[in-house]
Amino acid sequence: MTREMEIICVGNELLIGKTLNTNAQWIAKQATALGITVKRVTVVADEVNEIANVIREILRRKPQFTVTTGGLGPTFDDKTLEGIAESLNRKLVVNDEALKMVREKYEAYAREKGTETVELTKARIKMAMLPEKAEPIPNPVGTAPGVRVDLKETMLIVLPGVPSEMEAIFHESIVPLLMRVSGKSVFYEKSMYADGVMESSLAPLIDKVMQNNPRVYIKSHPKGRENKPHIEIHISITAREEEKSKEKLQKAIKQLSSEIGKIGGKVVFD
Amino acid sequence: MTREMEIICVGNELLIGKTLNTNAQWIAKQATALGITVKRVTVVADEVNEIANVIREILRRKPQFTVTTGGLGPTFDDKTLEGIAESLNRKLVVNDEALKMVREKYEAYAREKGTETVELTKARIKMAMLPEKAEPIPNPVGTAPGVRVDLKETMLIVLPGVPSEMEAIFHESIVPLLMRVSGKSVFYEKSMYADGVMESSLAPLIDKVMQNNPRVYIKSHPKGRENKPHIEIHISITAREEEKSKEKLQKAIKQLSSEIGKIGGKVVFD
Repeated sequence: MTREMEIICVGNELLIGKTLNTNAQWIAKQATALGITVKRVTVVADEVNEIANVIREILRRKPQFTVTTGGLGPTFDDKTLEGIAESLNRKLVVNDEALKMVREKYEAYAREKGTETVELTKARIKMAMLPEKAEPIPNPVGTAPGVRVDLKETMLIVLPGVPSEMEAIFHESIVPLLMRVSGKSVFYEKSMYADGVMESSLAPLIDKVMQNNPRVYIKSHPKGRENKPHIEIHISITAREEEKSKEKLQKAIKQLSSEIGKIGGKVVFD
Repeated sequence: MTREMEIICVGNELLIGKTLNTNAQWIAKQATALGITVKRVTVVADEVNEIANVIREILRRKPQFTVTTGGLGPTFDDKTLEGIAESLNRKLVVNDEALKMVREKYEAYAREKGTETVELTKARIKMAMLPEKAEPIPNPVGTAPGVRVDLKETMLIVLPGVPSEMEAIFHESIVPLLMRVSGKSVFYEKSMYADGVMESSLAPLIDKVMQNNPRVYIKSHPKGRENKPHIEIHISITAREEEKSKEKLQKAIKQLSSEIGKIGGKVVFD
């Protein structure tokens, strides 16, 4: 589907609860701001078969973009590219451009240290082993290049798991790519807070305002307790036209504020 | 598969990057500590079909436990139980026990406020509409009960998305349930740090130590940069026997420390 994205996060550290998955949130926020709908996030272990299964399942759902993070480094448990290769029935081969990127990184590190020789060990060459017909994406911060694989219905974007590296590649190469391929659209959002109204009493009002305002999405997030309610109401819209979207959002906010007032609630904005 | 768990987090707020998915990490940590392996986390939108699809896919993989969070409240976009009912081809019916739980909550809220009548509106009754043959789980903090559905190969545990409610139900009802059904086992972990060694140089050492120490899992997490390396090394083991596991973990740590020393690295513990 066009303008849809799925995100895969690879890493046992996420599945044992050692690491909080900030990467998924960061990418979701970036993609949403570009008007792309993130349909799913899947977190999967550092296992070739698991990764390959998840990729196969996603390709059947045909999102325009699939972004993976994690599993690109030099260690044995960095298995994302192996999993992708398996899911696509392609071989992992040394990619000359990627190898050049990796070599230049280690040459720069060696110069900084004042040592001369750079040994391209098996672990280092591993970072330049890409599935056939894939392209490396420069990593401005770390060593392992990102990877791009253009498939029939999905563009597969493969990024490292270290947040600073993932974010740097995303800013430098992925944002321009997404905008070029997907076209620009807008996402506006606004939060308001309702005090003194229970979420269960708010529910029919939100229903009504959403029915009156197509394309506007409203969701309540209870922040207090049901008996001492402080409820965040998040209102958002994704569309192509900037001005009309802002107006539509404002109109829905006004209607909902008025409805909440009628049942004795107090509306607060940030 | 026994002693395996999948986690589903339902909520558009997670897919637009508004909310960081702390629930998945929290549940993963709890399950891991009980010796259960979390195989996947799937984040999905507030849409009945999407939720139903994810449930169907998971049931085919047959994890012993599936835990969902989010989508249990009174509003139109709380659709988890509808999605589960659809995936199981069951009807949503008013569950008397759940309705009693919900009614008692609103009666208590009314008493606190000094009002007499409690209206069980459609939005409130919604929280007691469970798939046929499901059981409610008491919510000690909020209004919407948790839900348990025993399927042939999987126990489905359905929890609210508000962290305080999810955690309270988990502590009170789910931990005892997991221990009873799954049996007790242990998970030990330890972090050490290697300075002055590049991750790519560390990779073959980790390989070697893991081969020498079956059941021990070692993963490196670069925290500095490849040219100024500060690498966290996380070592863990899941097993049935407490004492032997600790010994095995210690043995692997000792071997790895020695290997890192040999190539000029410095090992630091917390």
